[in-house]
Amino acid sequence: MRNIKITIEYDGKRYLGWQRLGDSDKTIQGRIEAVLTQITGEKIEIIGSGRTDAGTHARGQVANFKTDSPLTSDKLLNQLNHYLPWDIIVKKVEEVPERFHARYNATGKQYSYYVWNNPIPSAFERYYSHHISQKLDITKMNSACRMLEGTHDFLGFSSLKKSKKTTVRTIKAITITSEGDLLQFKFEGEGFLYNMVRIMMGTILEIGAGTLEANIIDDVFMSKTRKNAGMTVPAQGLFLDCVEYK
Amino acid sequence: MRNIKITIEYDGKRYLGWQRLGDSDKTIQGRIEAVLTQITGEKIEIIGSGRTDAGTHARGQVANFKTDSPLTSDKLLNQLNHYLPWDIIVKKVEEVPERFHARYNATGKQYSYYVWNNPIPSAFERYYSHHISQKLDITKMNSACRMLEGTHDFLGFSSLKKSKKTTVRTIKAITITSEGDLLQFKFEGEGFLYNMVRIMMGTILEIGAGTLEANIIDDVFMSKTRKNAGMTVPAQGLFLDCVEYK
Repeated sequence: MRNIKITIEYDGKRYLGWQRLGDSDKTIQGRIEAVLTQITGEKIEIIGSGRTDAGTHARGQVANFKTDSPLTSDKLLNQLNHYLPWDIIVKKVEEVPERFHARYNATGKQYSYYVWNNPIPSAFERYYSHHISQKLDITKMNSACRMLEGTHDFLGFSSLKKSKKTTVRTIKAITITSEGDLLQFKFEGEGFLYNMVRIMMGTILEIGAGTLEANIIDDVFMSKTRKNAGMTVPAQGLFLDCVEYK
Repeated sequence: MRNIKITIEYDGKRYLGWQRLGDSDKTIQGRIEAVLTQITGEKIEIIGSGRTDAGTHARGQVANFKTDSPLTSDKLLNQLNHYLPWDIIVKKVEEVPERFHARYNATGKQYSYYVWNNPIPSAFERYYSHHISQKLDITKMNSACRMLEGTHDFLGFSSLKKSKKTTVRTIKAITITSEGDLLQFKFEGEGFLYNMVRIMMGTILEIGAGTLEANIIDDVFMSKTRKNAGMTVPAQGLFLDCVEYK
């Protein structure tokens, strides 16, 4: 059987998230599988690099699937984009070795989180950022980013209750850039726990707003207690930028 | 009576354009007037700097209205944004001299038009740009911009049949910038005729695609004939950036 890797961009606004939910046509995975089944005549299941939550967007989600279809990669790309809704776009289709697995083989991921930092909301950023009226302190937030970078046990920065598997993760870099009132927080790491970006982000923002002190980060690393960290920020500001493979 | 100037940002996607149409709640002007009437208890009519078409966006549309309301500018701003839908945002409210008129006093306008130039569409730019698959020649388009700049009779680059008033206009600059596959065409001028930006843009794009020669621009200036110019590009790529006043 052939193994096909696809790179996907989607606007998550209208969807319940990546993961298929029964027959719902409101999930990204479900939509792509339905079109693949239609194109190939086979019952196809795709494996994503990971889930994204309802409302979260992707510029470079990756998935793979097995098929006996003789359609070329170019033909698959065209057919997918022909039948998929306008807010789910397949950017690339590649034939990969049989052993390639979009989730197990991922060696890194990059997410971006956007914040609209102005007392007046934006008509364009409503579904693509989190609106914060209060002026945020960039210096304090940068210090918080430095504390979060590196290798730590991130259990307290996740929605996991407990985990049999390790909750130690390595964050390569968290960088803040701004374009006018729109702040972009870029998270690069080998892997992230469930809700980890949204909880780190909530903590960084509360430090920037002055409602939490930066030393809370060490507290959370030590106590491994979710409730000590900041809020979980809304999903709509989050973008999965890309997934890396060796 | 007080004279109030407002600066407005809107996502035109869900609307039939700026201009009020009977009782429709699908126009920007109609929506703002309805809210102002609700806030002030007066029947209020607003004067925009000019119309925008269905689907066209604005980052800095300007309008003014007369009122006896004692509400401060800050209060008006808050109340407007409280009652307006999320995709119409009032960015600024200012009290201005009685003689200020948003249309007659405008001394300049800036529009931007966006083109997504990649064979594969974008999930995010669908309603905010015009999608062109074919690679565009930036050098040729820049030459076309140079020919359009300056003072000319733009009748042939408009949807006007004839005009008793002058159709001579001055374009200060047309500049092209790119961010990845997204091209931004910025038009700065003292004023524009009906559909003038969209027809100039269609002409520039056809020159960039090689289906029209650059000398067509002189032809259109000389012949003043709309049909010699390029297509009228779709409204959704167009943004009214700002309106200038002395």
